[in-house]
Amino acid sequence: MRIYTTDRGIGRESERGRLDLLDLPQAELGELLRGPGVGAAREAAVTETVALHDVEILAPVTRPGKIVIIGYNFPSHGDEVRERLGDVHLPEEPNFRLVAGTAVTAPHAAIRLPALADTRVDYEGEVAAVIGRVAKDVEVGHGWEHVAGLTVVNDVTARDIQARAMAGDPTASLGIAKSFDTFKPLGPCLVTTDEIGTSPDLRLVTRVNGEVRQDDRTGSLLHPIPALVSYLSSFMTLEPGDVVCTGTPRGIGYFAGRFLQDGDEVEVEVEGIGSVRNTVRRS
Amino acid sequence: MRIYTTDRGIGRESERGRLDLLDLPQAELGELLRGPGVGAAREAAVTETVALHDVEILAPVTRPGKIVIIGYNFPSHGDEVRERLGDVHLPEEPNFRLVAGTAVTAPHAAIRLPALADTRVDYEGEVAAVIGRVAKDVEVGHGWEHVAGLTVVNDVTARDIQARAMAGDPTASLGIAKSFDTFKPLGPCLVTTDEIGTSPDLRLVTRVNGEVRQDDRTGSLLHPIPALVSYLSSFMTLEPGDVVCTGTPRGIGYFAGRFLQDGDEVEVEVEGIGSVRNTVRRS
Repeated sequence: MRIYTTDRGIGRESERGRLDLLDLPQAELGELLRGPGVGAAREAAVTETVALHDVEILAPVTRPGKIVIIGYNFPSHGDEVRERLGDVHLPEEPNFRLVAGTAVTAPHAAIRLPALADTRVDYEGEVAAVIGRVAKDVEVGHGWEHVAGLTVVNDVTARDIQARAMAGDPTASLGIAKSFDTFKPLGPCLVTTDEIGTSPDLRLVTRVNGEVRQDDRTGSLLHPIPALVSYLSSFMTLEPGDVVCTGTPRGIGYFAGRFLQDGDEVEVEVEGIGSVRNTVRRS
Repeated sequence: MRIYTTDRGIGRESERGRLDLLDLPQAELGELLRGPGVGAAREAAVTETVALHDVEILAPVTRPGKIVIIGYNFPSHGDEVRERLGDVHLPEEPNFRLVAGTAVTAPHAAIRLPALADTRVDYEGEVAAVIGRVAKDVEVGHGWEHVAGLTVVNDVTARDIQARAMAGDPTASLGIAKSFDTFKPLGPCLVTTDEIGTSPDLRLVTRVNGEVRQDDRTGSLLHPIPALVSYLSSFMTLEPGDVVCTGTPRGIGYFAGRFLQDGDEVEVEVEGIGSVRNTVRRS
């Protein structure tokens, strides 16, 4: 099942490009997940069928309770870090941080360069897991049971703030570098776990102005999604609607010295899910 | 006005120890703040008046959209850091991190020592500002207009994870050290800004098993609440129900080598608001 949050409520894709708008009291998927659960979208009555391009597509979850980002989870990105920064120690355990839910924006909304940090803003194409069931101390073998489905995220990052954090400046942190408003375009839909399967090996491509910058497959994640759910749930309870950004592959702009500029169009596409495509704008 | 979230809904203190339960569709204050606003609690009809001790007091906001913690905001704590760690550079700008909303617990619930980090868990007594109006790029002079009121928080911290983060371990961070479930006892009530005034100089005392460990006044905050709202809102939008933990004074357990143990009772009391008092338990 492919579920969209739109300006006309929650919809379920009936066929390619067509959306069944659902008779549900919840306005968006996060509310649905925190309430009756994703199954309610399967059973809900259809109020109207519309073309996808006739509604405004919002982020599937407009305000996640938590957004967790994972660092160094693609071998290809670890390789580029080592090639460029020398033989740095990359952790064997997942490397995670918390990001503000207010960073979420719609899959086709503008990414705003923040006034505070506008010169070294970078994309990170990723697949994101959306939590569907409360998870606390979950074993890896049960990790998928707590995932409602997958979506696409551009984990936009202010590299200057990240660099200050890595240099030990206490007023900077990786979480802050990733928390500016509009820095987490999310969408376009949630593809439920039963449709995507539990060993998703999906091609992930990031393009800037049409030029391919990242191209990898999610099958190579060092810590696959159930391992992330298990690990994170040993630190804190994951709740329905929480979003786990699973990590980015080789090809970030940072190592090429090419950052996002006013007017750029950046797209992250994940096979079988869709894409977020955003124009970069000055604040 | 003093507002409580209870197991019987939102209540307004009528006289000391007495609560007017309110006829409101919202179950808790966070929902109220995100909806009609705190004023609705002033105007709501009373359904029943009860004794405070006859209801279960919950955290005023059970799931903040964001929790932000501020480091080094009391001169007395900066002094103890310098005395004990040498002449470290303490930043002039506020030093903030994001913490998981799932860390919030009720003002008298147990603080659970996490299995992952159970030996160096420490208190930090603080006053917390609860956001009442959306704040983005707010000037200091308008900071208070975005604050619904104040409450008390124990910003419990796993010092071993904090120490790993400070030593550069990428799998650790200050935000994670503060994000374990039950690490943010919040309450007992929200005291609205009109009642508390805009230059609150409130005595803040932390006790462990009755022994005073921290004793300072919020009038000495290096960055007062409107300055924090202004600074944070230059990074990210603050939304109603978000919680800003404003920083802790001298006297943390870390420098005394005394950490919270199973069975300890830890209390943070702020003059004019009340206290959170929690028993420490193994997970």
